[in-house]
Amino acid sequence: MNLLDALQWRYATKKFDSAKKVDQKLIDQIIDAAWLAPTSSGLQPFQVIEITNPDLKNKILPITNNQHQVVDASHLLVFAAWDTYTEQRIDKIYGYIAHERGQSPEIYKDYTDMLKHTYLNRPAQPKEDTLPMEGFNNFDHAARQTYIAFAMSIAMAAELKVDATPIEGFDNKALDSLLTLKEKGLKSVVLLPLGYRDSKNDWLMPLKKVRHPKNEFLIEIK
Amino acid sequence: MNLLDALQWRYATKKFDSAKKVDQKLIDQIIDAAWLAPTSSGLQPFQVIEITNPDLKNKILPITNNQHQVVDASHLLVFAAWDTYTEQRIDKIYGYIAHERGQSPEIYKDYTDMLKHTYLNRPAQPKEDTLPMEGFNNFDHAARQTYIAFAMSIAMAAELKVDATPIEGFDNKALDSLLTLKEKGLKSVVLLPLGYRDSKNDWLMPLKKVRHPKNEFLIEIK
Repeated sequence: MNLLDALQWRYATKKFDSAKKVDQKLIDQIIDAAWLAPTSSGLQPFQVIEITNPDLKNKILPITNNQHQVVDASHLLVFAAWDTYTEQRIDKIYGYIAHERGQSPEIYKDYTDMLKHTYLNRPAQPKEDTLPMEGFNNFDHAARQTYIAFAMSIAMAAELKVDATPIEGFDNKALDSLLTLKEKGLKSVVLLPLGYRDSKNDWLMPLKKVRHPKNEFLIEIK
Repeated sequence: MNLLDALQWRYATKKFDSAKKVDQKLIDQIIDAAWLAPTSSGLQPFQVIEITNPDLKNKILPITNNQHQVVDASHLLVFAAWDTYTEQRIDKIYGYIAHERGQSPEIYKDYTDMLKHTYLNRPAQPKEDTLPMEGFNNFDHAARQTYIAFAMSIAMAAELKVDATPIEGFDNKALDSLLTLKEKGLKSVVLLPLGYRDSKNDWLMPLKKVRHPKNEFLIEIK
């Protein structure tokens, strides 16, 4: 399905049919779209956690303020960003890029030095905010990249006619703790339950999709 | 083109063929994908600015540290987020949603009250950071939504075989000033020059696309 048709078809599913499972091949494509997403300097500062374990989904439920999609969904994806950029992380991906391209890692030294200069001199977390770049920090930058991948998965799911619910509202710290993300150098950012809509019991499904009028959304400068 | 094929095909174009213009119908679809993007509570807290004016593109060039794609591209999109959430902005979109759905605006009162409680009690900007939600603030939240729309435009462009360069690195304040965004209650977030690659002069084009190995990207919990 064309992306525009897919975006018209999709909606934030409020009720999944918990009896319907999504074929793993479709889930793999939805994750691949996130994996292929472009990111700043190609650092890809995030990971995806794919959860099907029922006990774990039940433990996540209260952390999301009881949004039942996380348990009713066939698969639950957690998008988690790097807690910060480090020298090791930058060197690792650029070493791998050089390897995959059959190049010497030295070829990227000037570029990675520049990246390190930028990131290693910027606060890791908002808490330490000392206002370079309007208070920007490494985690928030990584989180923004995560949203690109999140959007690619939303788009891919819609093209495959797999329903999804983008979820931001949950207790990030509680989920990080449950999934031991801190130990992995990650922080949870967004969730994407995937499954098939329960058409009879989803109040949002029949309602018209509404966006700001196009002439209030777009400014053209010719 | 299927999204996964499109994501494999696309790359951050380093050199556009400035003689080739993109059909306006394709640009419209790329903007429509951003317009249809899902956002938190459906607030759609951003606008897109479509620039073809050559003089303006030339003025933007130094603001991007001379990334020539902004002038060589056929069309330049600027994604700008709301500077903050306001009562008026929340009421406006929910009034419009009710109108389009043939509902009374009263139906959304509890929901919009909840949104106002959340957003109007949160700092507008990072500078005023007083650490609710780890220092989160309205602008950064709106900027994250903007990345979803940005990603949808990147995906749509790739499906249409239109080349694009996602750009984060520019002087946001200088661009806001040039485009008088402050007066519109907006702040620039990302740029997306669109056009057609200059295959002979683009050093990145022939290089292999590299992502973290899949087993380092994905964590499965069954």
